Amino acid sequence: MQHRIDGERLWARLLAMAQIGPIPGDGSCRLTLSDDDEAGRALLISWCAARGFALRRDAIGNLFFRRQGRDADALPVLVGSHLDTQPTGGRFDGVLGVLAGLEVLETLADLDLETERPVDLCVWTNEEGSRFQPAMMGSGVACGILPFEQALAACDAGGVRVADELVRHGYEREPVPDIGLADCYVELHIEQGPILENSGKTIGVVTGGQGIRWYEISLHGEETHAGPVPMALRKDPVPMLARLIDLVHDIGGRDPQARCTIGQVRAVPGSINVVPGRIEMTVDLRHPDEIELEAMHHALMRGCSDLSRNYPAIRLDVAPRWHSPVVRFDANLANLVRSCAERLGFAAHDMVSGAGHDAFHLARRMPTVMIFVPCRDGISHNPQEYASPQAVAAGADVLLSVVLDRAMSRG
Amino acid sequence: MQHRIDGERLWARLLAMAQIGPIPGDGSCRLTLSDDDEAGRALLISWCAARGFALRRDAIGNLFFRRQGRDADALPVLVGSHLDTQPTGGRFDGVLGVLAGLEVLETLADLDLETERPVDLCVWTNEEGSRFQPAMMGSGVACGILPFEQALAACDAGGVRVADELVRHGYEREPVPDIGLADCYVELHIEQGPILENSGKTIGVVTGGQGIRWYEISLHGEETHAGPVPMALRKDPVPMLARLIDLVHDIGGRDPQARCTIGQVRAVPGSINVVPGRIEMTVDLRHPDEIELEAMHHALMRGCSDLSRNYPAIRLDVAPRWHSPVVRFDANLANLVRSCAERLGFAAHDMVSGAGHDAFHLARRMPTVMIFVPCRDGISHNPQEYASPQAVAAGADVLLSVVLDRAMSRG
Repeated sequence: MQHRIDGERLWARLLAMAQIGPIPGDGSCRLTLSDDDEAGRALLISWCAARGFALRRDAIGNLFFRRQGRDADALPVLVGSHLDTQPTGGRFDGVLGVLAGLEVLETLADLDLETERPVDLCVWTNEEGSRFQPAMMGSGVACGILPFEQALAACDAGGVRVADELVRHGYEREPVPDIGLADCYVELHIEQGPILENSGKTIGVVTGGQGIRWYEISLHGEETHAGPVPMALRKDPVPMLARLIDLVHDIGGRDPQARCTIGQVRAVPGSINVVPGRIEMTVDLRHPDEIELEAMHHALMRGCSDLSRNYPAIRLDVAPRWHSPVVRFDANLANLVRSCAERLGFAAHDMVSGAGHDAFHLARRMPTVMIFVPCRDGISHNPQEYASPQAVAAGADVLLSVVLDRAMSRG
Repeated sequence: MQHRIDGERLWARLLAMAQIGPIPGDGSCRLTLSDDDEAGRALLISWCAARGFALRRDAIGNLFFRRQGRDADALPVLVGSHLDTQPTGGRFDGVLGVLAGLEVLETLADLDLETERPVDLCVWTNEEGSRFQPAMMGSGVACGILPFEQALAACDAGGVRVADELVRHGYEREPVPDIGLADCYVELHIEQGPILENSGKTIGVVTGGQGIRWYEISLHGEETHAGPVPMALRKDPVPMLARLIDLVHDIGGRDPQARCTIGQVRAVPGSINVVPGRIEMTVDLRHPDEIELEAMHHALMRGCSDLSRNYPAIRLDVAPRWHSPVVRFDANLANLVRSCAERLGFAAHDMVSGAGHDAFHLARRMPTVMIFVPCRDGISHNPQEYASPQAVAAGADVLLSVVLDRAMSRG
């Protein structure tokens, strides 16, 4: 028999949580460690306390709620996500994974099901990275990937440190963050893209995450007056910009799994009657296969060299800024998600995550998998972000099913 | 016999004026109607007063210094330029035309030459347009091209109105600006481009000014996450930007007299991992022939239509923002400049002005011409702006010669 979560309770809680830090157009703004972020956590804590799930906190502000199993020493099954949002965030990104996790714990309690293993609901601090960088901070520290001191020293735009906000909210006396040993980590999330919606499938079986490489590129010419200086005597970087755009999009066009984005472009000084002295731009390359991503990197570097030769008057500087390697989730867990979806009657679709998630850090410490549900028009980080009650409930049902399978196993 | 100005006196005054509002690197900052702008005017007034040249002011802050001729009722010969600078301006742009004009008046006085006509030195308010828009404000109002009320209402970035600053400096009780009748207007200026320097010529005979057309173009796509959304499903405006750059530079490459500039380019929202929802850019088209400029305009419009058809997912908005028609200076005066340069032994070169000048407004009211001298590397609006003492003196000698020819004529 297939157990089901209470879809109405979960939906009502999603709407209630969205009222903490509400913004126009049905969105939410709960920036990391702000009063609104803490108020969101307090609401969650009140719901968990009402069901008797024990709370543990750590010194970076991560929260862990436990429903005990038969064997208190068995490695726990972890579920979770984050409650912080983008400045103009929606009601589902992060929040769904947390509240569906609570729904799983409550459903087990409602059914009075005794699991072998404890089940822990994790809430990670600062997944978004909007107020403090880097993103995925709490999970990064707890997994030993991001140095704790570096996280504490991170400042927001107003110069307020993470450490100051942790003290303000009383986290500083908690234990040093360390995820320790666990059986596995499972995170439910909206897709943030249009693939599931376009495919008509309900459940995304996330087999891993794209590798990402970031670059800053600048083209240095010579700033001159748009009137008196003949075009042949200028050192105008703009025509070279067109070639660079073509290069990047050509690299992205060779393979449907590749993603190439020029997110920032700016002419400096940016005056209508001044030939720009400089162009500043960024390039974001992604691919689910590390070897293919490496090939894209080399194509970009080779293309930049060729362009430098073809435009000797313009200096091209290309600086690699970040490399996040391809993440592969646990194949057994992905199989489990697939079979649970099948048993529950939901059409499933294998996919990789294009966005970053706390699960990427967890995957370096334990078997990890993610479950995606469709979101409308692929829109996220936006008040318009929307996942239907049916999709939300389907994702939580699959999460319950996966958790039950693992939590019932001995270990 | 050829009369000559005093090159050392002129050079010393250029250096002295540069000390009013000095900025690092030998530049000057005298923003329109600032205390520094007024201090520069006070220095000029003191020099003119010492030689007895009568001062007249008007209600927009233009200054006129007169050396009387034999016939007080004859139409005067006007020379002049402006003393205001860009925020990081140089020592020559504008200032040269004013101080060379003073040098002409003084040389006539030194030589005790009685001209038929009065000779007036004009100082125009706010040629640069850095603090208040539009540029060429004082000449525009005096020539009846820019409505006086519109000029008075112009505000700087801090909300201070031109009218407030005029009151603060005591101009508000002066006569309403009106250039009235005059024999002609002659303005000496640095070239602000590299043509004279590259040609090895000393004097630019400026036969007119380029026509200018300005456009704002925006490309509207759809903002999405750089990770989850496949490239084929995006509405990314960046590839279309490359085609637009090619279009504009192709239009500019068909004719060596054409100038095409994309001065502003900005991807919105401008985040490294977000596909831009919008590109904002400007286009500046110039040509010395109005028919050719019109053809460039149509080529841009046609090209934009073609692009809109080729990229149906992206909306292209193109908004013409300004059209400054081609200016033709007086052919007789241009001949006079050419023959004066020849008589003085300076190599001359016919050219059109790529930048805007007060003389463009004056040309609609009276015979007008400009004289250019080379500037180093074509650099202006920059502390590095430099014209040699020889070039400065040569320009002032030609100015003197032209003024003498016209001021000695009866009228």
